[in-house]
Formats: sequence, structure tokens, C-alpha cells
Amino acid sequence: MSVLVVGSTALDTIKTPLRESPRLLGGSASHAAVACSFFAPVRLIGVVGDDFPKRYIRLYRRHGIDLEGLQTATGKTFHWAGEYEVNMNNRRTLKTELGVFETFTPSLPEAYRRTPFVLLANIAPALQHHVLNQMRRPRFVVADTMDLWLNIALDDLLRLLRRIDAFVLNDSEARQLTKEDNVIAAAKKIHRLGPKYVIVKKGEHGALLSAPGGMFFSPAFPLNRVVDPTGAGDSFVGGLVGYLATSRGPLEAKLKRGMIYGSVVASYCCEGFGLTRTTRVARDDIERRAKQLQKMVRF
Amino acid sequence: MSVLVVGSTALDTIKTPLRESPRLLGGSASHAAVACSFFAPVRLIGVVGDDFPKRYIRLYRRHGIDLEGLQTATGKTFHWAGEYEVNMNNRRTLKTELGVFETFTPSLPEAYRRTPFVLLANIAPALQHHVLNQMRRPRFVVADTMDLWLNIALDDLLRLLRRIDAFVLNDSEARQLTKEDNVIAAAKKIHRLGPKYVIVKKGEHGALLSAPGGMFFSPAFPLNRVVDPTGAGDSFVGGLVGYLATSRGPLEAKLKRGMIYGSVVASYCCEGFGLTRTTRVARDDIERRAKQLQKMVRF
Repeated sequence: MSVLVVGSTALDTIKTPLRESPRLLGGSASHAAVACSFFAPVRLIGVVGDDFPKRYIRLYRRHGIDLEGLQTATGKTFHWAGEYEVNMNNRRTLKTELGVFETFTPSLPEAYRRTPFVLLANIAPALQHHVLNQMRRPRFVVADTMDLWLNIALDDLLRLLRRIDAFVLNDSEARQLTKEDNVIAAAKKIHRLGPKYVIVKKGEHGALLSAPGGMFFSPAFPLNRVVDPTGAGDSFVGGLVGYLATSRGPLEAKLKRGMIYGSVVASYCCEGFGLTRTTRVARDDIERRAKQLQKMVRF
Repeated sequence: MSVLVVGSTALDTIKTPLRESPRLLGGSASHAAVACSFFAPVRLIGVVGDDFPKRYIRLYRRHGIDLEGLQTATGKTFHWAGEYEVNMNNRRTLKTELGVFETFTPSLPEAYRRTPFVLLANIAPALQHHVLNQMRRPRFVVADTMDLWLNIALDDLLRLLRRIDAFVLNDSEARQLTKEDNVIAAAKKIHRLGPKYVIVKKGEHGALLSAPGGMFFSPAFPLNRVVDPTGAGDSFVGGLVGYLATSRGPLEAKLKRGMIYGSVVASYCCEGFGLTRTTRVARDDIERRAKQLQKMVRF
């Protein structure tokens, strides 16, 4: 089954201790859509400016991503620039130029409105609502977020939590949202805000799922060297929802395996700048790492 | 088979945001020995002062711990006082009074020298060497450490690494020892210093094993509330070695299951001040949580 992905479509300039890479394809929707495309047909909702490189349109197409919902507007594509410290865990934003995103109001093509799986990748909660309002009875809705929206759009986000099935956020966001230092306690509190499934991303420490059937831990795939972690969280959720949309069996079991597949795609994401490594991955590579991860937790 | 445990035997005063608990039974050897005792007969090497409460001697005995190697010296028992911040991850030492530990030179009872499993719990590497020098061909030697020894006794520690089978340390110590930010890369570098098995403890994020057969991740047992994490790392390694000494099968498989059992005992340790919760645990409780952990990683 298909997955509708909405989120940011951006050009990223990323500086690491190794080097600076300008105008990479980035944004939550780009990472999530490419990750998702390894498993399921993807329909992309986003906006780019008239400066958006044609090669990135071709890149989306190579991944079979349906671009009917990708608007091209007059103006500049959303541009984000960030810098990582040596340990790759701390990053700071150097520049955020919203460009055509400032006035973006997604209008869904008719064909998109019955997409069964919806991934509301990181973007303003108002836009996530706006997309959800146009959907006709989706089967499963997953939303991701970031600390910015907890700070400036908390009410919108809290309203969104009552409309979705699964909520994905990172550990520091879970702490901020619940004012609870203990991540396990924080995850449990988030259920009371609406979502039946809560997934907390912990970067190199993996991710945890809190669900009616109990908790589940998915490790991060171990990497000797991280080149650029930008988009790893988006890749994780993209792989997760893609797997979910195309596999069979009980939902919780699929969510668990989906987290493993999401971790694997995220690991590839970290091995190159932007999407450069992810786009060179084959489904076989993903299966191989998923098997390796399975071995690493079996006892 | 029996386990010889050497380490510190102390009285701890622990302050958390909840309350202050004075003169708790503490020290790496106390935590490790009690944790180990759920699985294997334990022989304890340590020293206490003449102020050491009789109730703690009874506590060791209730756990079947052989105390022939526990010296009582004239003077004060090693006393450590520490304070935790609200998030329970940051702690600072308020006081360290070495007392009788200052002049401690362990001399092993003859009966101890052929103990097959040796756990060199956290203590000065010179003392870990001194104990190892008196052992006759142990089957398996595990050593733990702390940042202090990396700072003031690095040469002793590096010499020790060439004499042991498994080395246990936490993630920040692994980074400090190898000058490598990436924990996976750090673990691999440590093999080159000697140990065939490297176990990196990551607190609430679990622990990882790097071994010839590959990597293994053991999650921490999820706790809604941590009362006092002091001794959790010692409990982890105590449970691990205790399991190792009494189970059958290939070594790496036993190490993996041992890490799970160690995580479980460590989780109980965190649920009370000092050893107050751990000492009320039954083997059934441990098996129950081990099964729950297994479910939490199965996919």
C-alpha cells in the first residue's frame, strides 16, 4: 500500500569537522520519502522554489516517488545550514531561510486523499493538521516533530496528538513535552495525550516503542564512523512507515520490525552527506543489516 | 563454579533529590558480590574497619558470601559520600575517606587461589594486579574500572588489560581511554590493548559487547523511576560473572545472557538506596525480568 509523506523539502548546507557540503538535497520529507521508497510507493507533498536543481527531481523519480503533490513556487527553496561538532552529537543551526515554505499551504491532489498510510514528517503542526484534514479515513497516521514546535506551536501539536496513531520524537523532546526526566515515564505520559503508539528516538542508542503490548527496544546499527547524521531521524521514520505499509501480520509486530528497518536505513543515511549514501543503497543491503541487527540482540 | 570478587567494601552516604541515606553498605565489591551471589558461590576479598556494622556482615552471610578473605583492620571503613542531581545521571562526590583502604594489601587465603572465575571489581589497578598475581590459572578473568584510574594509574591499568579476558567500562571511560568519540570504534580499539571481550556500559541505554563473534546489545531494564543508581554498574558485572560461572554452553552465548542477567540485577539495584532493594530480590524475580527483557528485543 502507498504512503503519503508530507514534510520539508529543502537544500541543506552541512558543515562537519571533515568538510562543508553545500546545497545537498535535504528536508524531513526528502529523507523520509527516500527511506520509505525502499519498501512502499510514496506520494510526496512539499514545495520547492524555482532554483531547485533538476537533478534532485530526477533523484526523487529514480526512487519511484510520485511528485504530483510537489509544488514548484516562484522564489527560493527552503535553505538550512548547520554545523556539527567533532562528536557529531551537537549541532547548531547557522542559517534558516524559509523561502517558498513561508507561504506553503499544501493542497492534496484528489488521487492522494485516500492514501492508506500517512507520514506527517517534521514540519509545522498546522501544516500537518492541514494535510490530515484533506485525507479520507487513512488507515494509520504517524507524526514526527522537533523541539521548535514544542516551543512555538505547542497547542497545535497537542491537538495533533489526539488525531494520530503513532507519535515519533526524540528523547530530549519527550522530556521537554512531559517535563519528566525519565524517558520511560515520559513515553508513558505521552499516551495520555492521545497516541496509542509512542516511539522515542535516542540517536546512537537506538529507539524505544511504548505500545499496548509492552515496550520494545530497537538498537541503532553500530557504525564506526558517522559522516553526517542529518536526516537520520527522518530516514528512521520513513523506513518504519514504508515497512508498515507493505508487510503483513499483527500491527505491533510490524511496528517492531519496522523500527529495525528504519534503524538500518538511518544507519546508511549517517554514512554520507545528505542523501548521498542512502540513494546508493539496494534493498539487499538493507536486508543484510537487518539480519545483522537481529543477531546483535539475540541471546 | 565459584567466583572470587575483589573490590572496595565501603559505607556510602548518598544524597538524592528525594532524601539522604547515611552509612549504607556500598563499594564495588559489595554490590558485585551480592549480585553475583544470586547465581554462584562468591568469595570476597576486601577490608573493613572496626566500625563496620555487624548487620552488614550478616547481610553478606545471608547471601552465602564466603568472608574468609574479608579483613577487619583497626581504623575506619572506607567512606564515600555523593550527591545526585534531579536527572539521576549526574553525580558529584562530596567526600572520599579511604580509611583502612589506604594501606590495604590483599593476601588471598590458600583456598581462594584456585577459584576458576575472577571478578576484579572497580579498585586501584595495582590491587587488581596484586590479586591476580596470587591466583593459580583462573579460567576467566573480568575487570571493571573507573575514570579515576584512567587519570592517575593508567600504566597499571594498561598492563592489567593484557592479563584479563574481559574488560568492562562505561562509555565515557571508553572514550577517554581511546581518545575516540565513537563508542563502537572505541570498543574495537580496546581489543588491541589486550582483552578479547570488551563490554561498554551505557547506563539507561544498556550495554554493548564487542567479541570475536560480533557485537551484542543488551538493553537496560526500563524503570519508571530510579531511586539510587549507585552500584548499578557493579551489580551488572557481578550478575554477569555469576551467570557465567554457573551456566553451560558456548562462552559468547553465555556472556550475552550474562549481560541480560546483569542488567536485571542492576535494575533492582536502582530501585532502592544502596543494596536495600537488591538484597530483597529472589531468583524468581530475576528470571521474570530477564524474560520480559527478552520479549522487549524480540522482533
